[in-house]
Amino acid sequence: MAERLVVIGGDAAGMSAASQARKRRPVGDLSVVAFEKGRYTSYSACGIPYWVGGLVDDSSELIARKPEVFRDDFDIDVRTRHEVVDIDLDRREVVAVALDEGRREVREPFDQLVYATGALPIHPPWAVEGVRGVFGVQTLDDGDALHAWLHRDPKPKHAVVVGGGYIGVEMAEAMINRGLSVTLIERGAQPMSTVDPDMGKLVADTMRTLGVDVRSGLAVTGLDHRDDVVSAVHTDQGSIPADVVVLGLGIRPNTALASTAGLPLGPTGGVRVDLRMRVIGKEGVWAVGDCVESVHRVTGQPVHIPLGTHANKQGRVAGINIGGGYATFPGVIGTAVTRVCGLEVARTGLLSREADAAGYSFVTATVESTNRAGYFPGADPMTIKLLAERGTGRLLGAQIVGRSEAAKRIDPLAVALWNNMTVEEMVGLDLGYAPPYAPVWDPVLIAARKTVDALGVL
Amino acid sequence: MAERLVVIGGDAAGMSAASQARKRRPVGDLSVVAFEKGRYTSYSACGIPYWVGGLVDDSSELIARKPEVFRDDFDIDVRTRHEVVDIDLDRREVVAVALDEGRREVREPFDQLVYATGALPIHPPWAVEGVRGVFGVQTLDDGDALHAWLHRDPKPKHAVVVGGGYIGVEMAEAMINRGLSVTLIERGAQPMSTVDPDMGKLVADTMRTLGVDVRSGLAVTGLDHRDDVVSAVHTDQGSIPADVVVLGLGIRPNTALASTAGLPLGPTGGVRVDLRMRVIGKEGVWAVGDCVESVHRVTGQPVHIPLGTHANKQGRVAGINIGGGYATFPGVIGTAVTRVCGLEVARTGLLSREADAAGYSFVTATVESTNRAGYFPGADPMTIKLLAERGTGRLLGAQIVGRSEAAKRIDPLAVALWNNMTVEEMVGLDLGYAPPYAPVWDPVLIAARKTVDALGVL
Repeated sequence: MAERLVVIGGDAAGMSAASQARKRRPVGDLSVVAFEKGRYTSYSACGIPYWVGGLVDDSSELIARKPEVFRDDFDIDVRTRHEVVDIDLDRREVVAVALDEGRREVREPFDQLVYATGALPIHPPWAVEGVRGVFGVQTLDDGDALHAWLHRDPKPKHAVVVGGGYIGVEMAEAMINRGLSVTLIERGAQPMSTVDPDMGKLVADTMRTLGVDVRSGLAVTGLDHRDDVVSAVHTDQGSIPADVVVLGLGIRPNTALASTAGLPLGPTGGVRVDLRMRVIGKEGVWAVGDCVESVHRVTGQPVHIPLGTHANKQGRVAGINIGGGYATFPGVIGTAVTRVCGLEVARTGLLSREADAAGYSFVTATVESTNRAGYFPGADPMTIKLLAERGTGRLLGAQIVGRSEAAKRIDPLAVALWNNMTVEEMVGLDLGYAPPYAPVWDPVLIAARKTVDALGVL
Repeated sequence: MAERLVVIGGDAAGMSAASQARKRRPVGDLSVVAFEKGRYTSYSACGIPYWVGGLVDDSSELIARKPEVFRDDFDIDVRTRHEVVDIDLDRREVVAVALDEGRREVREPFDQLVYATGALPIHPPWAVEGVRGVFGVQTLDDGDALHAWLHRDPKPKHAVVVGGGYIGVEMAEAMINRGLSVTLIERGAQPMSTVDPDMGKLVADTMRTLGVDVRSGLAVTGLDHRDDVVSAVHTDQGSIPADVVVLGLGIRPNTALASTAGLPLGPTGGVRVDLRMRVIGKEGVWAVGDCVESVHRVTGQPVHIPLGTHANKQGRVAGINIGGGYATFPGVIGTAVTRVCGLEVARTGLLSREADAAGYSFVTATVESTNRAGYFPGADPMTIKLLAERGTGRLLGAQIVGRSEAAKRIDPLAVALWNNMTVEEMVGLDLGYAPPYAPVWDPVLIAARKTVDALGVL
C-alpha cells in the first residue's frame, strides 16, 4: 500500500512540499491529500496590496497554481474549504470538516504529516466581533473581502490603517491609489520600524508628501460603528472617522492545532523544526512556512519571519526529504524588501536595536549615492546604511532606501553577510559596473568603504 | 624635504592613487605631480558610447574631477597635455614633454612613482595612418573626435563598427540612435563573445531587430578612402561603404614606457604587480588601472580586464599604501555588465570556453524567469545561465540576458562566487523578495536549483 501524506494548509509552503514529494514518488508509492480552509491554493499573499491598490487587475492573477492543476497534473487530492479541526498523533489521522457541506466530518489517516497552517493577523482586543469594515490582509479570502468592501455602494472614503509595518505601509499606499483619504496609526515613534529610525524617517516623510496622514505614538482604544459598520477609530488622542479599517499589526504563527496536538512551540510562538523541517521529537511530522520559527544565522537565535520566499524554500526542503532525498533549510538573515509610496526599502541582517539586543559592539555608516552613474539619465538618489562589528569588521546588517534600482542592491549585501564577510573584504568585491547600472564605485562598495573608515582600521 | 610622488596618467586609477595618498599625507610630507597626455582627468571612458549616442548631452558630464579641482582642493600639481616619454629608474626621474609648448622637455624627480597609463585600442594593420574617419573610443579625446566627426557637414550616414565586444556593440547602438545605418563586423562566429554563444545569440538577434546589420565570420582586409576620408571597408567577403569606422577590436595595456624602463610585464602584456599594487621587484614604483594585469580568483591565472571599477579600486589601494596605510587588491572574477539595444547583459566568473580551458569538469543550466512577480506590471523575461563544477558543486560562472532589472542580478551571483559557494548552498540564500522586485523564487535561486538538478546530487 502507498504511504499516505497529509498536508494541512494549501498555500505556498504546503503545496511546495506536496509537489516536491510527488515529483520524487509516484502515486503507487505515495498518496497525497491536502486540506485547505479557504478557496485558493498557492497564491501570493504579498500581492494583495497591489491588487487592492489597482496595480493588479484580478485576484486570480495572484494564484500560482489552482487546485485542479494539483489534482490533474500532480495527482494531489486537494480539498479546499476543508478546515482541519484536530490532529490525532496516536491514531495518526487528522479530522477535518467540509465547510460547504454543513461541516461534515472527514477523517484522513496519514503516515507523513505536513503542518503548513500559515499565520494569522493579530486581532487587537478592540476589534469588536461582528463589526463590518475591519480587515486583516493575510489570506486571499481576506483580500477578496476587503476588495469587495472598497467597491460597495456608497464607496468607503476614509481608511484607517492600524500599524506601520510592511503590510500597513503597503496598504496605506494601496488605498491612497484607490482615492481614499488614509490615516496610518503607529503606536511607536515612527512607522516602518522594520528599518532604523533614521532610515524609516525617509519613508514616513515621503508617505506624508503623498497625502497619507501619518500619526505616530498613538494607541487605538476602540471602534465606533453604525448599523454594524465601522464609523470611527478611537485613540488615546481622539477619534478618527473611518469607513474601512485595515489591520497591519503583524501576524503570529497559526499554531492552535499544533499546540493541542502537542507539537513543540518555540519562544517566538512558531513550531520548532530541525534543519530538515522535521517537527522536533515527532516522527513523520513536518512543519513549514509562516507557522514555524527559523534560526537567524547572525544571532543564532530563533526568529519568526513570515515570508513567501522562506515558505517556498521550506516546503521544497520538506518535500525533498519526504520524497526520499536530502535537503536542509539553512536559516534566515532577515532580508526584506518593499515598495512604498514610490520608495524602495530594503534590509538584511540586524537593525541597530537588534544588534544592541544581541550584545554586539558595532559601528554604522550611512552614505548617499545613486543607482546609475551620476551623468546617466534616470540617476536617482539612494541611501545605504551598514552595521559592522567592532574588532572583527564583520558586516552585521544593511538597509537601503532609494527611488529606483535600489531595493535589490540588498542582495549582494545579503550574500556578503551570509558568508560572514568583513566590510574591508567587501570593498574589493567585483560587482557589475557600467554607467546605466552603477557609478564606478557602486553604492554598496561606497557604503563598505565608509564603514571601514568608521571602524578606523586602515 | 617632502617625499615626491609622480603619477603618469591622470585618469581614474592614477588620480585615485594621487588623492588617496594626499588625504593621508599633507603637502609638507608629500608633493604630488601628475602628468596627463590628454586634456582631461578622471573621466568615465565607459560613458563615451552614451554621449556619442546622445543619451548624455555633453562630454563634460563624464568628467568626475577637473584638473583645477585636483590643484585647488588636493594640492596635486596636475599637468595636462604633458606626455611622459621616459622613466629613468636609476636617476629616479621621469621625462615629459609639454605638447602645447613645442614639446618643451620637463624633468621631474620622484621618490614614489605611480604608472597609470591605461590601455590603447588595438589598431589593426589595415588601419591606414592619415585616413580620417576611423576612431578608437578609449579616451575622452577619442570620443570628442568621433563626436565632432558625426556632426561634420555633410553628416556621415554609414557606420561600420569593427569588433563585437562591449565597446563594439555599445557603439553600434549609439550610432543607430544617431540615425546612421550601422554594420557590425565580427571576425568570430558571433558578436558578444563575452558571453557563451547561446546567450550571445539572444543579443545578436535583438541587434538585428533594431536594424544593426550584424555580419559574423568576416575579416576586414583594408580600407578605401577618398580625399583622405574613409569611404569603404574591405573584407574577405566584399566591400561595405562607410563614412565613419569605429574600432572595437579590444584594447591592450599601454606599456611602451614601462617596457623601456624595465618594468616587468606578465603573460597578458600588463605590468606585473603584487597585492598592494607594487610593481614586482621595483622599489617605490606602483602600477594601477588598465595597464596592469590582475589575478583571476577562480583560476588563479593572470588576466587583463580593463574596467573603471578595477582601476578605481587599484588606485585607492596604491594611494593608501603610499599614504602609509595598508590595503590590498584581492583580484577579479570577471564581472561585467552592459546595456545593448534594450537588453541588459551580465556575466561573472568563467564562460564555458574559459572553464574548459582551465580544465574544469562542469555542468551548465539555463533558466527563463522574470524580474518581477509574473503578475506584477512591468514583469520582463530574463535568462540566466550558471556553470558549476562537477563533484564540488562550486559555482564557476554566471551569465544573464534580460530586458530590465536583470544586469545587476549578477551581483549576488558574483558575491556567491567570490565566496566559493556551491549552487546547493545558494538555493538557501535569503535574497530580497516582494512582488515589484522578484518572483517568490528569485531568478537567481531558480537558476541555482536547476544547476543542482543538473549536478544530480539530490
